[in-house]
Amino acid sequence: MENPPSLDELIRALRCLPGVGPKSAQRMAFHLLQRDHDGARRLADGLNLALGRIRHCGKCNTFTEAEMCVVCASVRRDPTLLCVVETPADLAVMEQTQSYAGHYFVLMGRLSPLDGIGPREIHLDRLLQRASDGVVKEVILATNFTVEGEATAHYVSELLGDKGVKVTRIARGLPVGGELEHVDSGTLAQALLERRPA
Amino acid sequence: MENPPSLDELIRALRCLPGVGPKSAQRMAFHLLQRDHDGARRLADGLNLALGRIRHCGKCNTFTEAEMCVVCASVRRDPTLLCVVETPADLAVMEQTQSYAGHYFVLMGRLSPLDGIGPREIHLDRLLQRASDGVVKEVILATNFTVEGEATAHYVSELLGDKGVKVTRIARGLPVGGELEHVDSGTLAQALLERRPA
Ligand SMILES: [Zn+2]
Ligand SMILES: [Zn+2]
Repeated sequence: MENPPSLDELIRALRCLPGVGPKSAQRMAFHLLQRDHDGARRLADGLNLALGRIRHCGKCNTFTEAEMCVVCASVRRDPTLLCVVETPADLAVMEQTQSYAGHYFVLMGRLSPLDGIGPREIHLDRLLQRASDGVVKEVILATNFTVEGEATAHYVSELLGDKGVKVTRIARGLPVGGELEHVDSGTLAQALLERRPA
Repeated sequence: MENPPSLDELIRALRCLPGVGPKSAQRMAFHLLQRDHDGARRLADGLNLALGRIRHCGKCNTFTEAEMCVVCASVRRDPTLLCVVETPADLAVMEQTQSYAGHYFVLMGRLSPLDGIGPREIHLDRLLQRASDGVVKEVILATNFTVEGEATAHYVSELLGDKGVKVTRIARGLPVGGELEHVDSGTLAQALLERRPA
């Protein structure tokens, strides 16, 4: 026996979530329909609300509902420091260290030629422009210490090498292959402290 | 820095999905907003469509969009056999064995007093009524071989014991503690074949 069409469609739709295969999608759909209609409605509304409201900060590229995110809009942050991270999640863990008071640039990805993600996709033109604005004195590369994160850091470092701006890389206090999201704040704070010329 | 409110709300809403903790919810939200707006829209629509259309079959209790599901509506099924399963997913795997041509009753759960799931919550009154309709000759208990599934089978067996209907249990071809969903069709077909009086 097949599922009713709208149930099958819901199962298919749930598979757009990362890490969700056919079995978990079915389990999720059954759970929502059997036991959590309120949760399902809230999720549908949450998706539509976020789709309608969330955009990218005009300055740093992270998620925001306003023209500019709270970090970029703050007058208390040091405008001479620009930290480059891969994702808004990485920006969030940097902030959790409470040891950085500069600005950010969020790539929204990392170089990955095999996936068709090149310099344009991670907005390196905007990063270059930002780093060359005369205000920024140091660009801190805080991409992940994965193969792709390292390649991205190397590429950005080369790109900014002759623009008269200091380019540093957070220290490899992180385990090789490690991702910022999965490291404790202390380790990350240390890595930030020990940043070296890139 | 905190996330924008609508992003935080989406992350919270995603946690209604079984098996999704705070980290995965954040990863899912970022993925949808960064890379898959179409998927997010489709998921929101899929949730609303399913919520609007899916109801329970008036006869067997499984998910359906019509008054009655396709199994219950079929004239080719043997009306003297009634197989009791815990969920629509279990009904689906029973059908995949292609070795059962009777009807079903879907409990939409299993007895679990600690979770507040008693006889009423799994519709045993309706099952009793159905099993006593004079047409059903045999009730096949195909609940899981977990502690709760076994307790449910035992309870239903006692309940139907003096109603003049034969009550059988699918054979324990399944591993102890195993769940129907995770067993191959051949094993399940064998277990069905070797069912014994309950
Ligand atoms: Zn910003
Ligand atoms: Zn039915």
